[in-house]
Amino acid sequence: MNYRKLLRDMFDAAVAAASPAVCVPRHLPPPPKGRTLVVGAGKAAAAMAAAVEGNWSGPLEGLVVTRYGHTAPCRRIEVVEAAHPVPDAAGREAARRIVEKLGGLAPEDLVLCLISGGGSSLLALPAPGISLEDKQAINRALLRSGAHIGEMNCVRKHLSAIKGGRLAVAAAPAAVVSLMISDVPGDDPSIIASGPTVPDTTTTDDAISVLRKYRIEVPGSVLKHLQAAAAETPKPGDRRFHGVTNRVIATPQDALEAAARAARAAGFQPLILGNAIEGEARDVGLVHAGIAQQVARYGQPVAPPCALISGGEATVTVRGDGRGGRNTEFLLSLGIALDGQSATAAIAADTDGIDGSEDNAGALLLPDTLDRAARAGLNPKARLADNDAYAVFAQLGDLVMTGPTLTNVNDFRAILIDARP
Amino acid sequence: MNYRKLLRDMFDAAVAAASPAVCVPRHLPPPPKGRTLVVGAGKAAAAMAAAVEGNWSGPLEGLVVTRYGHTAPCRRIEVVEAAHPVPDAAGREAARRIVEKLGGLAPEDLVLCLISGGGSSLLALPAPGISLEDKQAINRALLRSGAHIGEMNCVRKHLSAIKGGRLAVAAAPAAVVSLMISDVPGDDPSIIASGPTVPDTTTTDDAISVLRKYRIEVPGSVLKHLQAAAAETPKPGDRRFHGVTNRVIATPQDALEAAARAARAAGFQPLILGNAIEGEARDVGLVHAGIAQQVARYGQPVAPPCALISGGEATVTVRGDGRGGRNTEFLLSLGIALDGQSATAAIAADTDGIDGSEDNAGALLLPDTLDRAARAGLNPKARLADNDAYAVFAQLGDLVMTGPTLTNVNDFRAILIDARP
Repeated sequence: MNYRKLLRDMFDAAVAAASPAVCVPRHLPPPPKGRTLVVGAGKAAAAMAAAVEGNWSGPLEGLVVTRYGHTAPCRRIEVVEAAHPVPDAAGREAARRIVEKLGGLAPEDLVLCLISGGGSSLLALPAPGISLEDKQAINRALLRSGAHIGEMNCVRKHLSAIKGGRLAVAAAPAAVVSLMISDVPGDDPSIIASGPTVPDTTTTDDAISVLRKYRIEVPGSVLKHLQAAAAETPKPGDRRFHGVTNRVIATPQDALEAAARAARAAGFQPLILGNAIEGEARDVGLVHAGIAQQVARYGQPVAPPCALISGGEATVTVRGDGRGGRNTEFLLSLGIALDGQSATAAIAADTDGIDGSEDNAGALLLPDTLDRAARAGLNPKARLADNDAYAVFAQLGDLVMTGPTLTNVNDFRAILIDARP
Repeated sequence: MNYRKLLRDMFDAAVAAASPAVCVPRHLPPPPKGRTLVVGAGKAAAAMAAAVEGNWSGPLEGLVVTRYGHTAPCRRIEVVEAAHPVPDAAGREAARRIVEKLGGLAPEDLVLCLISGGGSSLLALPAPGISLEDKQAINRALLRSGAHIGEMNCVRKHLSAIKGGRLAVAAAPAAVVSLMISDVPGDDPSIIASGPTVPDTTTTDDAISVLRKYRIEVPGSVLKHLQAAAAETPKPGDRRFHGVTNRVIATPQDALEAAARAARAAGFQPLILGNAIEGEARDVGLVHAGIAQQVARYGQPVAPPCALISGGEATVTVRGDGRGGRNTEFLLSLGIALDGQSATAAIAADTDGIDGSEDNAGALLLPDTLDRAARAGLNPKARLADNDAYAVFAQLGDLVMTGPTLTNVNDFRAILIDARP
């Protein structure tokens, strides 16, 4: 059995299911009578813009922001590259120009809004009167406070000039069709890139309550902003959303289902564990190992030959000096815990093509990986302790290298457990 | 639906399946012509001894070691309480007396050996010429070295007077029946309490190679010991094992299967994820949350109403100042990640009745737990960050208190996800 090929085929199927070239064209509306303005942000923004250009019959203009290195050739839509995950001046300036372009549209015009993972920081524009520094300080305090994600988003939306439906409002009275590639658990359009085209159900009063509840100190200027009527986000039922359509066109689940079909076609029963599995990467690896061992020993939760599949974004708490993203850490931890379990192989890779800040998407774990590592003089446990998982897979030639895939539906993990001979 | 009752019923079924009173009697051999000597060690040792006494027709004598507080009333078998997990003088003295008692038995005599989790440290007796301090220092160095568990066990067995089959050899020519309650992944008899009645396939040369491979410094006296013929562990085929029978009488899997039957009887489809799932407790909680969310949203990997079940020993890296074992940490992390997911409830508890070093076995998470915590002024995220999960469940009245259960098949976790209304 060529595990290497099947695992890579599954990953490629997952990425293809979320690729703009596949999922954008089928969701495009008919051209309007007036102008068509394309705006957007995210790791897939340039590729989505290119997919629009390649499938659009009328005139077209616009501006999208993507991450450095995630660009794609466009002729009619301007593509700006900017920093992610920490916003920079290029992103702020592009966001300002997008808001400017949305002003003065007519009812017969159409705005195509192209949203994908990373869009929130690429399109960061503080509300008038709020400095970026204040916004960042409040964000850090929120993260430490114990506030729920819903509470944090409530505050963020009320400090932004774009989030929480403000982009759609800025486009009124033009029609807006927002196409979204989801990288968030649950695929809620109001959470993807903080919902620039989605009405907000929370209020400035809610935002102030959250700040008080968690005793978050804010400058007087921020409090004054939140107490002003202009800070209120647009609400459901607001007639300015009348011409707005939000469509989630690709999700992590779509990617996992595509990989599951590839596994089934190769005779491996797929079992999707979850599309939003999070946690410290090495511990996520241990839990996956425990499930893979149960498969091999008891045929639970599914009998081999099978493929355990999961998605979601693991985290890495860096304590060592090595190199490695969450996918190589997951995989090395998995391999150590499996301790040579026969006929078991795995892949872990980021669907955006970049594992954290490395140059690889992820890596492959093969049945002989630990043996080969030992022969190469590598100590996998010591490398994992030093956050140096990249080095192990690099030295073994088992990195998965794709370059930016120009989409993002989070991490992809699959473990093949073959029938025992 | 009374989730509280069903979850507790499932846990009780898991514990009952591994209770000595249930599993010892059915595995007892017929009485021998000669003497019957009962020896043993572990958290279940006293309860196993009591189960022997209550179901044995002939004369009986013996000595078993259990953890402080895990005793059970015995009339004919002496029960010694000792320290776990760090051995103390009481345990060493009991181990010495057990080896002494095994000398001078006849072929018509029978040794009943009762082994359970914790037995390894309760029955720690260094080989002659090795100090306990040396043994402990080498053990610490092994844990840091990156050695596999198999490599570590090889060294440990060659430094012990009891492990790696030596207890059985000491009992020859008497017959030995060893009854084991497993708390180790894979239930390998040579690993449970380091296999005191199981032949060892590794050699002193292997042990020396491991020490060299990982550059572990050992005192000259230890090296001299390992180079002497007396240090060699008894091997498979050694005729002194001729009269030895090893039986694993209860396993973590047995406990999970019993809980699964209880869930099914209540209309919840059980899915056993793994009986040996390890990792940092809060991250194990996050992964379980990811699977539970997939169940609720997609009916994957199983459709509700269902029960996700797992076992194994999670770990807690203490960074805060609070109270809490791995089960309450798992549960609080799970609850925060589920963020109020409706119709979902869970239990996590140690089958030995003690969650780490606390007085509770574990706790319950109910659909309204986070709401009740908020009303009680508790900040679950802050408590989790402070390793203070115990306090949350204690204040809500949701601890599971059993006292020592007198068995040990590791942790038990179950998540009920009901059908949506």
